[in-house]
Amino acid sequence: MPEYSDLENAISTMVTQFHSASADNSSTLKTDEFKNLLSKQLPNLVKGVGTDQGLSEILRKMGVGDGEGVSFKHFWSLIQTLATSQHGILGGQKGCNCNCILM
Amino acid sequence: MPEYSDLENAISTMVTQFHSASADNSSTLKTDEFKNLLSKQLPNLVKGVGTDQGLSEILRKMGVGDGEGVSFKHFWSLIQTLATSQHGILGGQKGCNCNCILM
Repeated sequence: MPEYSDLENAISTMVTQFHSASADNSSTLKTDEFKNLLSKQLPNLVKGVGTDQGLSEILRKMGVGDGEGVSFKHFWSLIQTLATSQHGILGGQKGCNCNCILM
Repeated sequence: MPEYSDLENAISTMVTQFHSASADNSSTLKTDEFKNLLSKQLPNLVKGVGTDQGLSEILRKMGVGDGEGVSFKHFWSLIQTLATSQHGILGGQKGCNCNCILM
């Protein structure tokens, strides 16, 4: 088994976190499963999960229709949004002072 | 400073790895900087970096034009492709046996 780099492990983490949130190994997450995933894994980056209204808004922005399960593709659109804004959140902490425009 | 979850750290890793690959804190990576990033951080997931032809093919798939720098958006399209195929690569190792269709 090869050793994985930080970046490879990061990609793997994102995939496995999504999968492990599904109780029945389904290809999509139920709303409650997705809510748990956000609460446990993205407490600092995603706000508003605590209320039904907040959660609905998050799902809407991810492109999830009413009553629809949350697919990896939906989840990925959230991750992309978070990664794009991440520079602003963690930039100072990491001492990064570059002039990048993420997306 | 809040504690970050595995998933939050994974997002942070992707952003900081991209930034740290730039010697001059530029918003885009030069081809050589990007090549180094792939060699060091994605040796198991991205093949073909060793040849000029292989690298050109990777850049083309990411949507990078001739002589253009590699932006975070380009980089992200590569990460997305890797994450999508990750289930097949690491699925067995993690003992995951679900029927998911990633994207």
